[in-house]
Parts: sequence; C-alpha cells; structure tokens
Amino acid sequence: MATLHFPIMSDTKRLKLTIAYDGANYSGFQLQPRDVTVQQRVEEAFLALFPTPKRIHGSSRTDTGVHARGMVAHVDIPKSEWRMTPYKLRLALNAHLPEDIRIPLVQAVPNSFHARFDAKGKQYRYYIWNHAAMDPLRRTQAWHVPKALDADRMREAAACFIGKKNFESFANNRSYKMEDYVRTLTRVDVRKEGPLFTVIIEGDGFLYKMCRGIVGTLARVGEGKLEPREIKVILKHRDRRVAGTTAPAHGLTLWKVFY
Amino acid sequence: MATLHFPIMSDTKRLKLTIAYDGANYSGFQLQPRDVTVQQRVEEAFLALFPTPKRIHGSSRTDTGVHARGMVAHVDIPKSEWRMTPYKLRLALNAHLPEDIRIPLVQAVPNSFHARFDAKGKQYRYYIWNHAAMDPLRRTQAWHVPKALDADRMREAAACFIGKKNFESFANNRSYKMEDYVRTLTRVDVRKEGPLFTVIIEGDGFLYKMCRGIVGTLARVGEGKLEPREIKVILKHRDRRVAGTTAPAHGLTLWKVFY
Repeated sequence: MATLHFPIMSDTKRLKLTIAYDGANYSGFQLQPRDVTVQQRVEEAFLALFPTPKRIHGSSRTDTGVHARGMVAHVDIPKSEWRMTPYKLRLALNAHLPEDIRIPLVQAVPNSFHARFDAKGKQYRYYIWNHAAMDPLRRTQAWHVPKALDADRMREAAACFIGKKNFESFANNRSYKMEDYVRTLTRVDVRKEGPLFTVIIEGDGFLYKMCRGIVGTLARVGEGKLEPREIKVILKHRDRRVAGTTAPAHGLTLWKVFY
Repeated sequence: MATLHFPIMSDTKRLKLTIAYDGANYSGFQLQPRDVTVQQRVEEAFLALFPTPKRIHGSSRTDTGVHARGMVAHVDIPKSEWRMTPYKLRLALNAHLPEDIRIPLVQAVPNSFHARFDAKGKQYRYYIWNHAAMDPLRRTQAWHVPKALDADRMREAAACFIGKKNFESFANNRSYKMEDYVRTLTRVDVRKEGPLFTVIIEGDGFLYKMCRGIVGTLARVGEGKLEPREIKVILKHRDRRVAGTTAPAHGLTLWKVFY
C-alpha cells in the first residue's frame, strides 16, 4: 500500500540570496499592495524559472528610494523543482531581473537558516556631497549639503550614538503601537575624502528611518547648528521632534547583513 | 573730439570654468549641428544670465556617453556685462543647468589663458566591474566584464604604454586626413579593490577613442586572450585592427586637465 506523501522541511532546499539594487525606482524592498518593490521583481524572476511561485523572505525592509549592496533573503525550493546549481540559478535570475536589481550571490544554506531572525547586525552607509555644486555623477546616491561641514564635530557627535540606547528621538513612528526603541550601535564612523563624506553605521537593529535621523542630526552638528554634546540630551528626550531632520533616502545604502 | 571705441582684449574678462557632467544624455562635450551636447547646455545657461551670447572654449572633446569631473573651458565676458563675482556666477550658472551638468569652479584668469592650447596634460579614469553580476549602483559608470581579470597581467601590459609612442593602433580614425599619432603617456595604473578595477591614464594628449582602445586591450590581457608582451608588437603594427576592442564609453571619465 502506498503511503501518503506530504511535503516536509527536508523536501525543500533553502537558498540564501544576496541582493543589490538601485532603490530609485522602487517603493522599498518589501511587497506592497499597490507599488512596485524589489521583492516583487525578485519573485517574478523566480516565477519565470520555476513551475510554482516562490516567496522570498528578506532580512530587512528598506524605505522607498534606499539602495542596497548586501540585502539578504532566503527562499525554499522544493527538491522536485531543483535542477540547477546555485551558480547557474544566479545567472538565470539575473537574466530575468531589471538592470537596477542584481543577485551577486546564491548560496545553499541549512533549512534552519532564517534571513531575518538569524541576522546578528547590519551595516548601512550614507553618502553626503559637501560642496556648493553637487557632483552630477553622484546625484542619485549622495545627499547634497552645500554648507561646509566640520568632520571633527560630526565625529564627536557620532561617538555619542555608540552603545545600547533608546533611539526613539531618531526614529519616525511607523504606527501608534508601542515599540521597543532600544538598539545597540557598535560603529558610527564619519569618513571624509575631499567633499565626500561617508557615514558608516553598524548595529544589531534599526528603527524606521533611524539611520537617516542620525545622519540628518550629524549634518546639523557639522553645520554648527547643534553642539556635539547635545546628542546625549536629544537621546534622553525620546522625542523625534528634538533631533535634526531626516536625511533623504537616496543617500543611504544597506551595505551588509551580518550572521 | 571723441575717439572711436573698438572692443579690445582688455575690455573682456576671461574666466576658467571647471565642468562636471554625467555624459549619458549627451552627444559628447563639443557643439554638434543636430545633437544635444554639454557645451550647448552651458552656453544656454550663460544666455539666461547675460545680454549677449557667450562662446565657451573647451580643453577637450569627449565622446558621446563619456563623463567628466574636471573638464575645463574658458569664456570671455565683456567688462560692460560683468556684474557678479566668480562665486556668484557659479551659483547662477548651476541654477540654470540641468542636474546632470554642474560647474564646481569658476576662476578669473589672465586673458592669455587658453583652455585647449595651455593644457599640459589630462587624466582619464576608467572603471570596470569584474564580477559575474553587474553592480546595479555602478551600471551607468562602469563597464561590466564578467570573466575574471588578472590585475598583475594588466599591470605588466599597462607599463608598455608608458612613454612617447605612436598610438595609431589604439585610436579610431576620425577622418581620412593624415594625423600625428605620437603621444606621451606618463601614467597607466591598474588599481583593484574587490571587483572594481580603476585604470588611471595620464598623458600630454589623447587620440580619438585612445583611452577606450587601451582599456579594451588591457581587458583582453586580463582575460588571458593576449600576452602582456604583445602590447609592444601591437604598438609597432600601427593598425587599429590588431588591438583589442574599444571599451564602452560609459566607463570613462575625464578626471582632470593639467595646466
């Protein structure tokens, strides 16, 4: 007598995808009911290659217009549909993606791997072009701040963000529900090469628009409108209205997810 | 009795303009009868600010699609029309330019300065993204070469270009007229940071598509299709057909003009 066959975990193969994209034309990474997102385009590429739809699970959301070099997602492929090496699958997926989205890496991972829950931390990078005239070759990937920024003041302020802190003052509320605003930042570097500033932020997790709130506030410190020591006061306030403005999305890139 | 007044050199003020642009939407720098060029857009910006048309004189042509960070041009402004500082003029010009063209610097120079004839040399930079998947954030400014490139082989080949040489094998003929193909290159560096290759080329002058001919040939050496020592043989041939293909325009940037 034949036994009934139900799909169980071991009947699927889990893959880890690294995804890079130019966020300009997308309403962020995560699926949206009406707007075009990166996740949608990646799932469409899978649909062109496999007989059944695949759901990809991202490590993070990114906001509309934010870029990524190292977004991570996982996807399960039934073994019955598995006919390619990860290397070949990467080539095939890229051939079905628009040119502003690419998958630089596909890796087989254990079925226990989870892109979101296993993420230990993330690195974001934010570019600022600090010159009276914007660099036309960076206009889609850097924030134009014409007023001179003082890198040393910004570094002094950046140090105040390091550690386990309540970041309510630097996050835009997404909803009215109570949230845990405590996050740990391990790195906030301000690099300067000529007019190009790069702010590198690493932490265990990020609130909605938190990176852009931090960078907007660092820019105010750099312009001299805020004192570096005021960062600590702003953090204590736990109120978004006391910090600087939110820096624009197109300057931000999700650089790497750590596991 | 009043003397007749003719405009002479000292009645005009000469300005040196540094111009940066994303070349994607332009048929090069220099005015063309039908196509839109960078020079045209800059002259239109002057027309919006001065009562009479101004002609700008560029240091170089650039081909369709080639970018610039440090293109230089000069322009003469009649003293009777001169009402702004160079600093204010820069702001005003940038306000009248499309976002893919910017003038980072306007400087008053002696009337003897000539953007083209006084140029002692130029630096070009060429970006190659050497990975199976293109970086979507560099797709408009780097050439995608998926096959692995050997940087050491490319450096060995690059050294063969240094010095005063006949570059006929690396230039596309623009016309049938006899040309002097001898140019002196002082620097051909191949830098590699992960998948990003940067080829930095400096010389006293460049033939039509010469940089792109050199980079296309270096790529063939990097892929192993050509031996580094063959560069010397190709140079001796003085025939464009024996060298590698011309690398695409969008990877190239005119970086700097030396005076």
